[in-house]
Amino acid sequence: MRALRFHGRQDLRIDDVPEPEAGPGQIKVKVDWCGICGTDLHEFQAGPIYVPSTAPHPLTGELAPVVMGHEFAGRVAAVGEGVTDVQVGDAVTVEPSIRCDACVACEDGRYNICETRGVYGLSGWGGGLAEYCVVDRRNVHILPPSVPTDVGALVEPLAVAWHAVRNSGFEAGQDALVVGAGPIGLALLLCLKAHGARWVGISEMSAARKQLAGQLGADDVLDPRTDDVVDRARKATGGTGPHVAFDASGLPVTLETAITAVRTRGTVCNVAIWEEPAPVDMQLLQNGEKTLRSTLCYAGDDYPEVVAALSDGRLSPGALITARVPLDEAVDGGFRQLLDNKDQHVKLLIAP
Amino acid sequence: MRALRFHGRQDLRIDDVPEPEAGPGQIKVKVDWCGICGTDLHEFQAGPIYVPSTAPHPLTGELAPVVMGHEFAGRVAAVGEGVTDVQVGDAVTVEPSIRCDACVACEDGRYNICETRGVYGLSGWGGGLAEYCVVDRRNVHILPPSVPTDVGALVEPLAVAWHAVRNSGFEAGQDALVVGAGPIGLALLLCLKAHGARWVGISEMSAARKQLAGQLGADDVLDPRTDDVVDRARKATGGTGPHVAFDASGLPVTLETAITAVRTRGTVCNVAIWEEPAPVDMQLLQNGEKTLRSTLCYAGDDYPEVVAALSDGRLSPGALITARVPLDEAVDGGFRQLLDNKDQHVKLLIAP
Ligand SMILES: [Zn+2]
Ligand SMILES: [Zn+2]
Ligand SMILES: [Zn+2]
Ligand SMILES: [Zn+2]
Repeated sequence: MRALRFHGRQDLRIDDVPEPEAGPGQIKVKVDWCGICGTDLHEFQAGPIYVPSTAPHPLTGELAPVVMGHEFAGRVAAVGEGVTDVQVGDAVTVEPSIRCDACVACEDGRYNICETRGVYGLSGWGGGLAEYCVVDRRNVHILPPSVPTDVGALVEPLAVAWHAVRNSGFEAGQDALVVGAGPIGLALLLCLKAHGARWVGISEMSAARKQLAGQLGADDVLDPRTDDVVDRARKATGGTGPHVAFDASGLPVTLETAITAVRTRGTVCNVAIWEEPAPVDMQLLQNGEKTLRSTLCYAGDDYPEVVAALSDGRLSPGALITARVPLDEAVDGGFRQLLDNKDQHVKLLIAP
Repeated sequence: MRALRFHGRQDLRIDDVPEPEAGPGQIKVKVDWCGICGTDLHEFQAGPIYVPSTAPHPLTGELAPVVMGHEFAGRVAAVGEGVTDVQVGDAVTVEPSIRCDACVACEDGRYNICETRGVYGLSGWGGGLAEYCVVDRRNVHILPPSVPTDVGALVEPLAVAWHAVRNSGFEAGQDALVVGAGPIGLALLLCLKAHGARWVGISEMSAARKQLAGQLGADDVLDPRTDDVVDRARKATGGTGPHVAFDASGLPVTLETAITAVRTRGTVCNVAIWEEPAPVDMQLLQNGEKTLRSTLCYAGDDYPEVVAALSDGRLSPGALITARVPLDEAVDGGFRQLLDNKDQHVKLLIAP
């Protein structure tokens, strides 16, 4: 079968690889759609970062080249021995977490912070940028008929945002600021509204993303070049500032905006990837007894809850899909297209 | 009466000032003991920082020179009109918070983070480094007979630590690491034990402070020059790391120790004053979904709870008092003595 594999920095290839078969307890998924995310782009440009390149991944035992793609959905093509609750033909979305089942985090069900965690599509065992992918039964969530598989490929970024909202302590009726309207920022907007947010402000500079944020229900779309974001957020929340603020950009200035804007005793939640130490104004944190939290991926109920919210209409993320590209064109029409026109796209889906 | 006043950087003077009288709702305290803390030393060396010097403090209306000293206890010398529940002669400790009563924080009872907050002993309205100080009724807490006024002068730093422990989410039976065994670090140790800590480790380099930490009940006293603090903390806690870690030093390396040592999903609580942005390793925070919180002073039940814990013996902080000096010698025998021999002292008390 054809699969897009990471061989090294700037070296992605469409390779012919053996079609995987489902072993006991496993499910073979025919991939319909797979999204490309910032992590994938970063791996392509600056990797290997997550892809094991010098030593095999401790859980998969694999090294580059590995199949990429961790945001995917499709149909069940075959089930392995012992799998009785999933049928061939079922529409499914794949939760790509690979975990050790032995560390403290895994024992708590917090496999998102497993000490040796891996990801289908980065760590080996295949991925979504291929015709087929075989995963364990527990990595598969059945999609109800109302959720098509293109939307199913959005469950991964939505689950990241859903998990962050849950971990921020956000409650229905509260206010939130989101700094950055990239895929995760917009997913946060949708998840906050699905959690009953009263007001969600979003700060962004790209014209295309600002427009989409408004279309997706942001109560205020702010541009830090022309708006005093902190002041606008305060005014929109009766003078106090929002209960939570999410930094979905990961820059010193966006983190400071989030910390300044959030109300006293509020929570700032970082969902961005930082490569350098973040400069945190501790006095700002202290003078308002604010909390800074950083969340990672998803675990436990996050995937099922997102699927349920998609099914009953609390989440309507279709507008996040800004392009669809066949697998053969994934490198130039997908990865390079996104890198060259970042601000024009939110979620680009590949059809293997 | 005699009072130690801040006139400017490196300029503290014992002045003769008018003896204050208690107005309606106020209490005149004859000061027995007043502690000097890091904030006072910093004000002396590098101030004015908290002391208003260019514009009057918004609540007190005062400018330097101001009387210093905010950690004090003594006896009631007179009560103003309308005060019926405190008697002349009562032993009392003073909670030095000055607040606006109008901001969101004050309305929530969180007057420690009042937007225009002030402090007796820094912001005007007198202070504890004087023979007498007049404060509002609500700033006075009666000491039971079992708590002498020298221990009463320790309630302020203990309340800082008590508040931090409460805000960290610490629960009885849990483990904690304290980085730094200065006055606040040792107060944290005592408050953690009073809250039923199973294991408290403390990291410190000064020989005198290490010895005192052991004497005050630390389960492990670690020296970062010779011990791998993170590894020792993990081993002492069954491999997971402590539930909470307090940074009572405020250096990049101590903050990193606290963040690294705390268990996954644990809380790092900063109680230090940072003048520069703190470099926070966001990946470290994120990979363990750890929380960083910064707490300030005390409010509400903190003072009453500390007084109750002193009264019933859960807190025994007497060993923190390492010197007693009369007011006339407060500059050389107090401030300069502490600056020159920081590691030899914990709490130096002045007797006005
Ligand atoms: Zn991703
Ligand atoms: Zn694990
Ligand atoms: Zn102090
Ligand atoms: Zn206030």
